[in-house]
Amino acid sequence: MSENGILIIFSGPSGSGKDTVLNKLIAGREDIKVSVSMTTREKREGEIDGTHYYFVSREYFEKKVSEDKMLENAEYNGNLYGTPKAPVDEMLKSGKAVILEIEVQGAEKIRKLYPDVISIFLMPPSMRVLEERLRGRGTDDEETINHRLVIAREEIKRAPEYDYVVINDTIENAVAGIETIINAERKKTFRNKKIISEVINNV
Amino acid sequence: MSENGILIIFSGPSGSGKDTVLNKLIAGREDIKVSVSMTTREKREGEIDGTHYYFVSREYFEKKVSEDKMLENAEYNGNLYGTPKAPVDEMLKSGKAVILEIEVQGAEKIRKLYPDVISIFLMPPSMRVLEERLRGRGTDDEETINHRLVIAREEIKRAPEYDYVVINDTIENAVAGIETIINAERKKTFRNKKIISEVINNV
Repeated sequence: MSENGILIIFSGPSGSGKDTVLNKLIAGREDIKVSVSMTTREKREGEIDGTHYYFVSREYFEKKVSEDKMLENAEYNGNLYGTPKAPVDEMLKSGKAVILEIEVQGAEKIRKLYPDVISIFLMPPSMRVLEERLRGRGTDDEETINHRLVIAREEIKRAPEYDYVVINDTIENAVAGIETIINAERKKTFRNKKIISEVINNV
Repeated sequence: MSENGILIIFSGPSGSGKDTVLNKLIAGREDIKVSVSMTTREKREGEIDGTHYYFVSREYFEKKVSEDKMLENAEYNGNLYGTPKAPVDEMLKSGKAVILEIEVQGAEKIRKLYPDVISIFLMPPSMRVLEERLRGRGTDDEETINHRLVIAREEIKRAPEYDYVVINDTIENAVAGIETIINAERKKTFRNKKIISEVINNV
């Protein structure tokens, strides 16, 4: 089973519905896991250490980076965010599909480290729908929304760098789309060398 | 929709159940077609021209080959078999997934002509099951069955040249496996350039 672990880069613009889709996706499947990021930012009300993030000190985070124990890391608004390597490798070893929810920029380093990684871009069905969703949140002012839309368009322009595109017209469709991709990837021959050789050798 | 046509090479050893699986697969889906081969062999009882094969004269077949109108062709037992190019291109243009049921050897030429082609290898769950199926047909003598098993093992050794492997443990699983692969391939970004650009440009 170990050869069947699948590493998945998952990106999409703010408001594309990444968290909602991932939560629904992993609720139904034991074989799909979402990697938990590490951060130096303060824990917010309701957040659980090890579930939403690993909350650590800047000193600890920087030590992990210097020891090359992070898959990727970046700084936003004065806080460090990144993906610890060890838990990802462990889940892959046990045959899981492991999803890394990362920014478009973080994807490149991962592709170098894991050439078999696959990447999925979650896309809104239209810019109009994206705008409605951002407004619907009720958390951002007009300027922030317009800024997010400009960034979203830039990010969508990089969608062709991804292997797959999933359109989030409904959560159900988006979840089914990702499941389909994972199920198909499990049938790639290079992930099934063992079973092919078992059939040949009459095991 | 035209950019969504998918060409699929489909192979598997004798007794792996290719025809049964394909018949069940296309019964349920208008968007999946199996390419009809051309042959110079005699039409058998119950066979329909244009459904099982295009039955043609050797002269006609050779003319098509010389005009470069065949995707691949080969001779078995003194008869010519091959895949006419025009109907395949037409179905691809209209967005269909087009399946070519061909021998392992025929796959190479197609890969050169259609770099985006995907390939699926249908595999028996074990050599024992394959042997049972060949015996179950009741059409072959002991020597023929043993010969087919030797060839089957050689063919399965080439499975790693294919993109995907589908195990025919049950027809339902095999059909679902191929459907999953086609559905996932339709989400490849290079097949969705139009929709990505529509979202960016607010169409």
